[in-house]
Amino acid sequence: MAAGVSTAAPGGESLAARGENSSCHYSDNEEEAMMIIRELTHNQCISLIEAKRVARLGCSLDGQPYVVTIFYAYAEGHAYAFTLPGRKLDIMRANPKVALLVEETGSGRSWKSAMAEGSFEELPDRIGHKTLRERAWTLLSKYSDWWEPGALKPELPPVTDQSPHTFFRIHIDRVTGREAIDVEEQP
Amino acid sequence: MAAGVSTAAPGGESLAARGENSSCHYSDNEEEAMMIIRELTHNQCISLIEAKRVARLGCSLDGQPYVVTIFYAYAEGHAYAFTLPGRKLDIMRANPKVALLVEETGSGRSWKSAMAEGSFEELPDRIGHKTLRERAWTLLSKYSDWWEPGALKPELPPVTDQSPHTFFRIHIDRVTGREAIDVEEQP
Repeated sequence: MAAGVSTAAPGGESLAARGENSSCHYSDNEEEAMMIIRELTHNQCISLIEAKRVARLGCSLDGQPYVVTIFYAYAEGHAYAFTLPGRKLDIMRANPKVALLVEETGSGRSWKSAMAEGSFEELPDRIGHKTLRERAWTLLSKYSDWWEPGALKPELPPVTDQSPHTFFRIHIDRVTGREAIDVEEQP
Repeated sequence: MAAGVSTAAPGGESLAARGENSSCHYSDNEEEAMMIIRELTHNQCISLIEAKRVARLGCSLDGQPYVVTIFYAYAEGHAYAFTLPGRKLDIMRANPKVALLVEETGSGRSWKSAMAEGSFEELPDRIGHKTLRERAWTLLSKYSDWWEPGALKPELPPVTDQSPHTFFRIHIDRVTGREAIDVEEQP
């Protein structure tokens, strides 16, 4: 195991290390199977974000947060997505700072979680974004089980000023993440 | 169906009604099964929040949002939860405005989603909160498949100033929600 191993006291103190530098923690007591909680490296966070298509997007205006589920595709430091008009778009236009939470559950009680902090950038339907738009649309259209049916479809929306979709990307400035490994589920 | 039915154009415009008052929208075209998108009433939102135990909590500081998964239990206008020290607690202490996103997937591609906006209130380990704390702990401890293993356990944490857990509640000021009904999955 990596350095920084510690044995957590019963009651969940294994997560007390949030924000600290320890890289690995055990949680083991008679009522709970052995779990290992680890910080993810930057590259592990990016790999998770790159692999997934569903995230929870947090934005805020005047200190009031707003959280929605979105579909996205990651490429080269950015998460690309489309949205229809609505409150989240209004908020991100007013305050471009956002957070993106990406999660994955594994075998047993294992999970991974990464949160990206970054900034919203609108990509208008104008010359210069066509390649990006098509690339993002291609990536996104591979995900067929849309959680928000109708929000995104595998047809490239018309590149005209009349398109109801707004294409945007999130420039990822910072990522943090952690994983829990269910030791009993390991081979 | 309720009043306010409209037929969405292909391409996802069924969700263009976000934030509007229409109560029901269809999405139907040859590439996508018929879906009905509806706003949830206040009571439907509360029922969903009451039924679930996992939410995505959004908080923000200086305009920078932060999103994490939490476990909670709802009772009488409040979502109760415990947390260990860390960034989300620091943020909520500095800015108590939060958002709570609760989701449920149904049969087929059906889903429900409710977002509560409200305010964080810390409930210190002092006389006056013991009943609330025990009640919340009882509710929370019924949920045995903790996504964050170790973060919460079915043992009442010691009611002393040394407890690493911070008990808090979110006073829910406003709820909004919607649901998508997969018509093909209906009996």
